Amino acid sequence: MELVIATRNKGKIREIRDILIENKLDIEIKSLDEFTDIGQIPEPGHTFEENAIYKARFVSYRTGYFALSDDSGLEVDALDGRPGVFSARFAGMEASDEENNKKLLNLMKDVPFENRGAQFRCVMVLYSPFGDYILTQGVWRGKIALSPQGEGGFGYDPIFIDETLGKSAAQLSRGKKNSLSHRGIALRKMVRLIGPFLEHIK
Amino acid sequence: MELVIATRNKGKIREIRDILIENKLDIEIKSLDEFTDIGQIPEPGHTFEENAIYKARFVSYRTGYFALSDDSGLEVDALDGRPGVFSARFAGMEASDEENNKKLLNLMKDVPFENRGAQFRCVMVLYSPFGDYILTQGVWRGKIALSPQGEGGFGYDPIFIDETLGKSAAQLSRGKKNSLSHRGIALRKMVRLIGPFLEHIK
Repeated sequence: MELVIATRNKGKIREIRDILIENKLDIEIKSLDEFTDIGQIPEPGHTFEENAIYKARFVSYRTGYFALSDDSGLEVDALDGRPGVFSARFAGMEASDEENNKKLLNLMKDVPFENRGAQFRCVMVLYSPFGDYILTQGVWRGKIALSPQGEGGFGYDPIFIDETLGKSAAQLSRGKKNSLSHRGIALRKMVRLIGPFLEHIK
Repeated sequence: MELVIATRNKGKIREIRDILIENKLDIEIKSLDEFTDIGQIPEPGHTFEENAIYKARFVSYRTGYFALSDDSGLEVDALDGRPGVFSARFAGMEASDEENNKKLLNLMKDVPFENRGAQFRCVMVLYSPFGDYILTQGVWRGKIALSPQGEGGFGYDPIFIDETLGKSAAQLSRGKKNSLSHRGIALRKMVRLIGPFLEHIK
């Protein structure tokens, strides 16, 4: 059975592949790069749910395969949940991770550590070419660091602190991050359902 | 494991119970009537999908149980897809099945049989108290009859003709209807996923 991963984000693709392989799923994972006529995938929604459903549906309908999407981002308590669905574009449409992190730290410069609560949230959708789908969610609570720490991960990982470990997400091994992260939680729920879904949805 | 059926429509409840029992699922099916503080469930959506998700989420969050909803209706080609999400309320908020059927036949009175194509569509959602869900769909193509036929089923069944059988949905046995119907199709997809979903979504 085959499945297209409906994202071009290399960090997300790596984490999704890690967990699918770890769970020994007998599925051929296709990259979006195999479908040259699909350009940038729109993200027109106001919520992670809307965007995740839109992206998976778009890719499934365009390719004819089952598609797995991920919409995720950082919700900061002191910023009323921002950057939220705009996490990847917080400092501009083509903003780098460093620029997004810098903008966020700047907005938070007067907020003391005890008030820097935040969460990563991930919504994953597995869409069938027939209009059926599964949606799972994962949340990872933590705090916004005072400055970037660590070299691993991607996105806001260097400024997101897991309080139990006292480390940033960028300071964790890939395996350790997957065991704790919003994406890991959402994807482990999904993993148990992918087999039955691909087998029975026609 | 327990599951609340998020509808008060007795016809829908009967058909859902029939198929769950037929598939020998080891699940205790709870009726909404057990939860006396939940009144009428709102249906604020513009699509079957929105309403099905809304109803299942509403009941799951209010009861704390997994909830299974059904939003379904009749889409008539000659009426640009109406009555659609307004199927149950086509002739008014408290309209009876007979009043809805009568209104539809009246609107269609000048449409010849070959142009009376229509479909029943069903969207089912199984929602977890944690925000995860499965959505399945089913479609049953047919034609709008010239006059009501048969005593079984409910809703628009007396005026919906399955062309292969040459009978209205209200002329079929419960088992035969379930084997062909939009609800049967959506629910049989769901049935294979209910077990893994209730077991693994936490």
